[in-house]
Amino acid sequence: MDLVVGIDIGGTKTKVGLVDRHGNSHGQTFFRTKEYPVLETYLIKTKETVDALINDLDDAPRILGCGIGAPNASSKRGTIENAANLLWKGQVPFLEKFKAIMPMPMRIMNDASAAALGELLFGSGKDMTDFIAITLGTGFGAGIVANGQLIDGYDGFAGELGHVDMTIGDGRLTGLGVEGGLEAYVSATGLKRTITYMQSQYLDESRFRDIAYNDLHGEDITRAAEEGDVLALRAFDYTAKIMAQALANFTAFTQPEAFVLMGGLTNSGKWILEPLDKYFNEFLLEVYRGKVKIIESGMPDKTAAICGAAALIWEKHK
Amino acid sequence: MDLVVGIDIGGTKTKVGLVDRHGNSHGQTFFRTKEYPVLETYLIKTKETVDALINDLDDAPRILGCGIGAPNASSKRGTIENAANLLWKGQVPFLEKFKAIMPMPMRIMNDASAAALGELLFGSGKDMTDFIAITLGTGFGAGIVANGQLIDGYDGFAGELGHVDMTIGDGRLTGLGVEGGLEAYVSATGLKRTITYMQSQYLDESRFRDIAYNDLHGEDITRAAEEGDVLALRAFDYTAKIMAQALANFTAFTQPEAFVLMGGLTNSGKWILEPLDKYFNEFLLEVYRGKVKIIESGMPDKTAAICGAAALIWEKHK
Repeated sequence: MDLVVGIDIGGTKTKVGLVDRHGNSHGQTFFRTKEYPVLETYLIKTKETVDALINDLDDAPRILGCGIGAPNASSKRGTIENAANLLWKGQVPFLEKFKAIMPMPMRIMNDASAAALGELLFGSGKDMTDFIAITLGTGFGAGIVANGQLIDGYDGFAGELGHVDMTIGDGRLTGLGVEGGLEAYVSATGLKRTITYMQSQYLDESRFRDIAYNDLHGEDITRAAEEGDVLALRAFDYTAKIMAQALANFTAFTQPEAFVLMGGLTNSGKWILEPLDKYFNEFLLEVYRGKVKIIESGMPDKTAAICGAAALIWEKHK
Repeated sequence: MDLVVGIDIGGTKTKVGLVDRHGNSHGQTFFRTKEYPVLETYLIKTKETVDALINDLDDAPRILGCGIGAPNASSKRGTIENAANLLWKGQVPFLEKFKAIMPMPMRIMNDASAAALGELLFGSGKDMTDFIAITLGTGFGAGIVANGQLIDGYDGFAGELGHVDMTIGDGRLTGLGVEGGLEAYVSATGLKRTITYMQSQYLDESRFRDIAYNDLHGEDITRAAEEGDVLALRAFDYTAKIMAQALANFTAFTQPEAFVLMGGLTNSGKWILEPLDKYFNEFLLEVYRGKVKIIESGMPDKTAAICGAAALIWEKHK
């Protein structure tokens, strides 16, 4: 059987899996990224993890290559550059070094762009030529598909939409120091920040007044909304409104047929999606109204990142 | 000789010309758009204008087709839809009706997108695969080239960046009613509006205190800046700063190698370009800094629109 290695490098976990041409997983696992602060030992650990997955299969597969999704990866240079959540600093020649240890066809790409490619090949994007995949995790990522192709940018850094300046009143800083940057509001982290902001703005009783910022989790906010907690409801409304404004602006750029949402914040379901839909159609320019869908990823949550990474290689075999 | 008909439909003038495969003009002329409020008579007038240009040539050319640039044109439907500056209202099936009168291969596209295609085939974009053409006239238009292709959007309305919400303090309305929309600030009209705004904000002496809004022209503002008029200098700085913020945001989208500027406002030269450069590099995300150029169009001002329109057909013959 033909398989592709898919690797998703996150600040917390590195996920590794084997993916067939239909996007099905044939074994996957993970290890903790931060336990390998030296790049060389990280790469050896990664190769060992891949080998173990292959050995677990009943029949020896043909491995067509390895696709890698990572924050701040440049597809054109094969590098990871100044990634805020990774321990390897500066401009890391990731592909060159990994190929020396595990020689096979290899591609690396920004994780949100890889997710978009995964949707295009295996998920909700299969029948679309123009869509934008939005990852709502610790940060806000975007992968843009137009004319049926992924948009890479001049040197592989297209889609850094989390750092678009929204010039919102209170001008929060993003991790990259952008004042009023989108992901400071619209992400799992942004929602937590908004919960604390709401405590400063209003005097309503709320369960969150007894929880410290560092003890706050996305699921708690969703549960609070279900229980009618006023601050939680205000926080979702506030987040959805800013996100709707951003998506309306992005629509004017490539006019996607849909935004495909994925990542932690989407687990809040209707609490974020219902106000998002309402505001989005309010903000959208007349010429686009009724033509742009907001949908959820068509990929199973657990395998989406690995399949997206594997799509970098499967794209070349279509 | 092989030629293509290029037509640029503007609110004031309709420009018609014949363009060879290198982007050279072989005759061009114009007539006043508003003198033909009925579409059918407009189309007959256009065909007559084309015929006259062909008859003026020494040798009968082979006409490969006709490309049309127009505001609010959908390339996918062949329509012009709700164009604010044109007298034909609603959804106009332009291509279908024009083909009935002048049967030949024909394409229509948003004027800014056509201008981008002209730059790609004949102008500053010849050696680039990722750039954004910006037209700064009555409004703010954009044509996006990524992966060496023009980005059309799901039904042909990509690049409507003049209506992106910038959420600037005073929230001016655009012609489409977008509050705080970019083109209300960054366009020839936006600059005029800013001159009046500066009169409200400051008490400095200025030649503009003796000129009514309707008598104000772009050249006057440039001349005033040259003479050291404080309000003119403030207006250019204000415009450049907002434009720089917008271009920095757009960079995060497709990461272009360059922005190619054209249209009336660019005639103000260094008064707009110098502060623009300064603010742009300030606002740009670290990862993009030093990698994105702002350049002027490589096309002669007079023929750019016609060549852009003709590029719609020449693109198919490359």
